Amino acid sequence: MYRTKTCGELRLENAGQEVVLAGWVQRSRKMGGMTFIDLRDRYGITQLVFNEKVDVELCQKANKIGREYVIQIKGTVQERESKNAKMPTGDIEIIVQELNVLNASDVPPFTIEDNTDGGDDLRMKYRYLDLRRSCVRANLELRHRFCLAVRHFLDSKGFLEIETPVLVGSTPEGARDFIVPSRMNPGMFYALPQSPQTLKQLLMVAGMDRYFQIVKCFRDEDLRADRQPEFTQIDCEMSFVEQDDIIRLFEEMAKYLFKEIRGYDLGEAPFLRLPWSEAMRRFGSDKPDMRFGMEFVELMDVLKGTGSFGVFNEAAYIGGICAKGCAHYTRKQLDELTNFVKSSQIGAKGLVYARIQDDGSVKSSVDKFYTPEVLQQLKQTMQAEPGDLILIISGPDAMKARKQLCELRLEMGSRLGLRDKNKFALLWVVDFPMFEWSDEEQRLMAMHHPFTAPKPEDVPLLDTDPAQVKANAYDMVCNGVEVGGGSIRIHDAELQAKIFKVLGFTPERAQEQFGFLMNAFKYGAPPHGGLAYGLDRWVSLFAGLDSIRDCIAFPKNNSGRDVMLDAPSRVDQKQLDELYLSLVDPDKGK
Amino acid sequence: MYRTKTCGELRLENAGQEVVLAGWVQRSRKMGGMTFIDLRDRYGITQLVFNEKVDVELCQKANKIGREYVIQIKGTVQERESKNAKMPTGDIEIIVQELNVLNASDVPPFTIEDNTDGGDDLRMKYRYLDLRRSCVRANLELRHRFCLAVRHFLDSKGFLEIETPVLVGSTPEGARDFIVPSRMNPGMFYALPQSPQTLKQLLMVAGMDRYFQIVKCFRDEDLRADRQPEFTQIDCEMSFVEQDDIIRLFEEMAKYLFKEIRGYDLGEAPFLRLPWSEAMRRFGSDKPDMRFGMEFVELMDVLKGTGSFGVFNEAAYIGGICAKGCAHYTRKQLDELTNFVKSSQIGAKGLVYARIQDDGSVKSSVDKFYTPEVLQQLKQTMQAEPGDLILIISGPDAMKARKQLCELRLEMGSRLGLRDKNKFALLWVVDFPMFEWSDEEQRLMAMHHPFTAPKPEDVPLLDTDPAQVKANAYDMVCNGVEVGGGSIRIHDAELQAKIFKVLGFTPERAQEQFGFLMNAFKYGAPPHGGLAYGLDRWVSLFAGLDSIRDCIAFPKNNSGRDVMLDAPSRVDQKQLDELYLSLVDPDKGK
Repeated sequence: MYRTKTCGELRLENAGQEVVLAGWVQRSRKMGGMTFIDLRDRYGITQLVFNEKVDVELCQKANKIGREYVIQIKGTVQERESKNAKMPTGDIEIIVQELNVLNASDVPPFTIEDNTDGGDDLRMKYRYLDLRRSCVRANLELRHRFCLAVRHFLDSKGFLEIETPVLVGSTPEGARDFIVPSRMNPGMFYALPQSPQTLKQLLMVAGMDRYFQIVKCFRDEDLRADRQPEFTQIDCEMSFVEQDDIIRLFEEMAKYLFKEIRGYDLGEAPFLRLPWSEAMRRFGSDKPDMRFGMEFVELMDVLKGTGSFGVFNEAAYIGGICAKGCAHYTRKQLDELTNFVKSSQIGAKGLVYARIQDDGSVKSSVDKFYTPEVLQQLKQTMQAEPGDLILIISGPDAMKARKQLCELRLEMGSRLGLRDKNKFALLWVVDFPMFEWSDEEQRLMAMHHPFTAPKPEDVPLLDTDPAQVKANAYDMVCNGVEVGGGSIRIHDAELQAKIFKVLGFTPERAQEQFGFLMNAFKYGAPPHGGLAYGLDRWVSLFAGLDSIRDCIAFPKNNSGRDVMLDAPSRVDQKQLDELYLSLVDPDKGK
Repeated sequence: MYRTKTCGELRLENAGQEVVLAGWVQRSRKMGGMTFIDLRDRYGITQLVFNEKVDVELCQKANKIGREYVIQIKGTVQERESKNAKMPTGDIEIIVQELNVLNASDVPPFTIEDNTDGGDDLRMKYRYLDLRRSCVRANLELRHRFCLAVRHFLDSKGFLEIETPVLVGSTPEGARDFIVPSRMNPGMFYALPQSPQTLKQLLMVAGMDRYFQIVKCFRDEDLRADRQPEFTQIDCEMSFVEQDDIIRLFEEMAKYLFKEIRGYDLGEAPFLRLPWSEAMRRFGSDKPDMRFGMEFVELMDVLKGTGSFGVFNEAAYIGGICAKGCAHYTRKQLDELTNFVKSSQIGAKGLVYARIQDDGSVKSSVDKFYTPEVLQQLKQTMQAEPGDLILIISGPDAMKARKQLCELRLEMGSRLGLRDKNKFALLWVVDFPMFEWSDEEQRLMAMHHPFTAPKPEDVPLLDTDPAQVKANAYDMVCNGVEVGGGSIRIHDAELQAKIFKVLGFTPERAQEQFGFLMNAFKYGAPPHGGLAYGLDRWVSLFAGLDSIRDCIAFPKNNSGRDVMLDAPSRVDQKQLDELYLSLVDPDKGK
């Protein structure tokens, strides 16, 4: 062992002890005849002292050492004269007797400090240096503890962690698969799993009763801001359960994790269970941020047909939110908000506002179209008070307008400081629709996935009005983020076949793609259900991060590249030949 | 919840309680006016009783239920008249009041019993039924507990579990990679990692100090008996350590796991550390089975040139083992052994034997070539006693002859019952050579991998006689199986460059393939080392299994196929088009 102690553990009571430490040079400074070096390892920082008067040669050697050199020292722990209360080791320093350079270092391309001068691209290229920063390392430590706690909890509830294969079959339903050519089976391909959904259902058919896995999943999607081509799921499944059993168990797990890992008490009360339709009506979102109110108020009765504002009169939806105490917003601030909702990501046509003046009168951007009585009615319906600002969105497509108003609500929440990263609001969104219409595919698509069980009372609607069928599906939402979701699954081969039919599968295609599952259902499939959490997202929430990237050791960029490894890359022709593959020139035939 | 209790937990003290159970019908039998059903779930089996006299309709319903039906019952726990001491629930039975068929089952293609009538292929196709057998399920339960214990131990030693990416770059050194075409980067490919070797080294450069991961790895090799294209590693790495630190820590882990998971005490004493050259000399193997002795005795001095047996006189190696008490072996038995060593897998030219008779005389298959004095000398050198059988292998290639003798030793160990699956003999094999000559590639290859550190005292030999260089590498061996292996790594960019040179890399190719690692070494790489365990193998050993397949939920067959999922398979042309790939007809151009 190159050390007897780490750089994080020495305290006043160790004074007088001889120790050997090893680590990286965080910084070094000369003061008079003394040289001070801060030595860093994963566990902390300890101050080293070299004294010219005591050993001039050693001190000169120390002076030659640069940042990020790896050194080993032998010395004696001594009480510091000027203590540093900000460091756990701030009461002591090491009087160095021996110094050994274990490895030199070039000057790093950015500073290894929490507030580094390195930009995103540089830090990703030199991720091994970025990870030396304690703020980044802390995220990985949190992730480690989080996973351990998940495993501890689920084990205590009788769950078995069972590994499912990474090389599986391709199932075109859902997102795009990554595929892997098989050398031993020329012309054939494995796929990397988008989730172990069907495999965990087979484990239930196999009688495993309670399964979980912390498992890598893969989706070949065009990467939006916070997506990774490979991501990690906490995947769970249980047999002989109903929706309520699953919700109660995973609510208990959430409370346990917040307490254990974050020291945060979510209280005794069960989480709110909000039906999907209500979530859309009140927040315009299936993952509402419940840290603050500012709920939607529908204004169709108040503003449609009650004045001469054509936009409202033609709207399928008019809704408003009340921003408390924002009546003082300037023209510039209101323009910012208007531009925000009109941006291409959000796509609203415009924003109507109404200030409640100190005297109770209403000053609105649509004054000229409405009588003061209508505006007073607006104030009342919105339950607005003097000093408040009413913000209104409308549109010809109710769902789209709601989503735009949702974005505005979140923006106002942020502006008003209502989205505190140290506050957590959890809820379940339940009663999702089974299907949603896809304009692209011109057919109904499964809203969760094709194995989701419809609500038993809605099964007859599958024949008559499938779009109205609700599912036994549920999402766990925290601070506006969907951290997990699941459903009761179909365990009946006949019902499963009917769902595939609604989704536009021919019986042959259903058999070809999911025959293994429907066959399995013939041999005594138990009632079962489960859910899956996005580990990266959940850890990010716990860590108070804006992006999942910061809790992943080696993330990929928006083009799916690992810039540190320089992957993906070209391969030898020999490798392609062995796989009976040839490349097609992307520019040809265009 | 579909049940109030599981099928494994009811005992005499529950008598009189009303319970709801759910599970699978293991078997059912009629006796007089009674129907008995054994109801099974993951936790056990409970006997259900239906009485015609009490409820004839219910009893008729029960009589219609077949094997593997999923049912739910409500009933009352009652003490059994004839108890079954072999079952944990054997003291009680359930008098059923309500019966609910949750799912029917076709007749399964094989019996769901420990001694099933299903062949290998059938069981793999219906793996979800195979997994219902308690002997198979027990292996997955063991694997779960094993992994939890590994995580618990390593966490207690300050290791962080850190996920490394599955989509990495291809590195042609080593085995063949599985590659994954990148749609967003046409013509480029990710590779699936053969191990996270370089990534974990980067984590050491990143200052993570102690890393581990239980992680899937991938190798596109032609599958021998006990290989899988995807397998699981317990991957570990530590900074600021020497070989001895790593060996001591992982020895402690092995002892902990055996105690915790297997209830087996490996004792206080450190494991034997056997130099590679000694392992080869004494056992002809770098993974000797130390459950029994029967060590090799070299017989060159005794038998080469001391008689007229040409085979021995021309041999580069002559070695024997002494099989205690086997002098009575019949002609047929000896022929079997001869055929065994001459089989194509082993490839010896022949087998020489010598029986020690009751009177101390030696009766050998090469009697006519040697004087009785030489044969007595043989007896003495072998330390053989009356009743013993000496078995001798020789050959022109010492290493090959040793390996043949090794196979013979293992065969004799098995025949003599010396390889008890409930006995465990662990050791370290150390001081491996750095390189081995590859006839195929006509160059030196890394015996472990190119990042292994040579022994410091051997570094000068890199320039003069690299084949003689020993490595700071070590394998943990249990019962003749290599369960894990590792090394101290190179942390110096210059030494790493020199090793690449010995391995025949041009500086350009080394830079192209491993530039990211050599660059990282410029920024203060700490001394580090680690090891990796084959989880599948280790769990198999703990479970007493002959094949790793039986501790994997969904294994692949020898052609790399998952016969249950029917993967790999053909994919849509659309998928290939998106990847700018086309298939080459394997029959063309041949």
